[in-house]
Amino acid sequence: MSNNIDIQTPPSGGRAAHVCLTPALLPLFNVEEYIVVVIDIFRATSSICYGIENGAEAIIPVSQVEECSAYREKGLDYLLAAERDGKVVDGFDFGNSPFSYTAQKVAGKTVVLTTTNGTHALHLSRSAKKIVIGSFLNLTALSIWLKTQHENILLVCAGWKNNFNLEDTLFAGAVIEHLKGEGYVPDDAAMAANDLFQVGKGDINQYLKKTSHGERLKKLGIEKDIEFCLQVDITTAIPVLQGERLVRLV
Amino acid sequence: MSNNIDIQTPPSGGRAAHVCLTPALLPLFNVEEYIVVVIDIFRATSSICYGIENGAEAIIPVSQVEECSAYREKGLDYLLAAERDGKVVDGFDFGNSPFSYTAQKVAGKTVVLTTTNGTHALHLSRSAKKIVIGSFLNLTALSIWLKTQHENILLVCAGWKNNFNLEDTLFAGAVIEHLKGEGYVPDDAAMAANDLFQVGKGDINQYLKKTSHGERLKKLGIEKDIEFCLQVDITTAIPVLQGERLVRLV
Repeated sequence: MSNNIDIQTPPSGGRAAHVCLTPALLPLFNVEEYIVVVIDIFRATSSICYGIENGAEAIIPVSQVEECSAYREKGLDYLLAAERDGKVVDGFDFGNSPFSYTAQKVAGKTVVLTTTNGTHALHLSRSAKKIVIGSFLNLTALSIWLKTQHENILLVCAGWKNNFNLEDTLFAGAVIEHLKGEGYVPDDAAMAANDLFQVGKGDINQYLKKTSHGERLKKLGIEKDIEFCLQVDITTAIPVLQGERLVRLV
Repeated sequence: MSNNIDIQTPPSGGRAAHVCLTPALLPLFNVEEYIVVVIDIFRATSSICYGIENGAEAIIPVSQVEECSAYREKGLDYLLAAERDGKVVDGFDFGNSPFSYTAQKVAGKTVVLTTTNGTHALHLSRSAKKIVIGSFLNLTALSIWLKTQHENILLVCAGWKNNFNLEDTLFAGAVIEHLKGEGYVPDDAAMAANDLFQVGKGDINQYLKKTSHGERLKKLGIEKDIEFCLQVDITTAIPVLQGERLVRLV
């Protein structure tokens, strides 16, 4: 399929505000020309924002449960968080429920995190100018910071196993809302995400209840996590990737 | 990336109404479990609907301009239509402007068509139960027929060079609107497409003017084509793929 790929390039007349709706579409973007925001609302990037806000020294995202286990074998005093299909993997300290990322649990600690979708998106974005983490928790702080950077912005939705999901797209649309009037040029996906945000913003929790992912997570008994992840602006920290570690941006 | 792919399977409790937002996401779907509707509003599938309505015996979609030329060398009395990046390729009878698909030009003829995006989506969908062609031109006829089939439905947006575009998604949302209340289970992309259709349906032409693709096509001087392609229900023919040929469904 490579001969059908058209690399998206930012517009010549302004900075880009583009949305990559799933990691499967990342090969269509020249990632190195953007600051990338990775979005995995339920629940990886919400928990990362909360954990960094609460003083975690670093969060190390890994793709595979085995990589996470490897840190235990190194004998380091790291907390190990592993989740697959929305559940904590046996033998790990916790999964990616935001309630595991309180100051009491993570302050001063390094957490090694493996998740189904968020880590995947992060790893595929590695060549970006900078990679930061977004969620409703840090929406305004993140958006204000983005505007000070004067760079092209690519909002990467982690989706669900490479397919589109509504909650990550809705958040991308919320960031686009903040960028309006600042001279950014949106692509079709950014326009769609913003229109969906307009439809859902009155009651995001209610809007997302209809989604397949919402149904899936409800079955896992994590409605409280979902409510938590939809709180807007309860944190100000912006997690940024430095090497292999997510740390607080200074 | 194959180990991250999760094949979408239709729900056990009902028929699926799923939307594949770009051909790049087709590997995520078990295509053989669906009737596929291929959508390339500007302009391939609109022109195909119009041509079949106007009595074209068949339209043969091909991926490459070279494949199209090969039909001339065979000495067959076929009309050859080739377009790249929205323009007629030198030496061909016409491109994919719908105004080339009038009864006067195509009645009784076979047309060999190569297009940037639509043919690509068609070829990738080959293992489907059936492949039909959709556009605003045949929206209601298509939707009524789909409901009589009692099968899972996958609406495949051709997009723009494998990325998302608004016009194809909006049409997918219009079909989903017709399927409401008929027991189909939508996925997140279907819900999003329908919400976008709700936003844009009051004046689809105006809504789509903001898109990048609309801008691109405007530069090519084909605003009249765009207006034509956004006419709802001016045809009733449903083109269906039989072997390598699109013909009128009987």
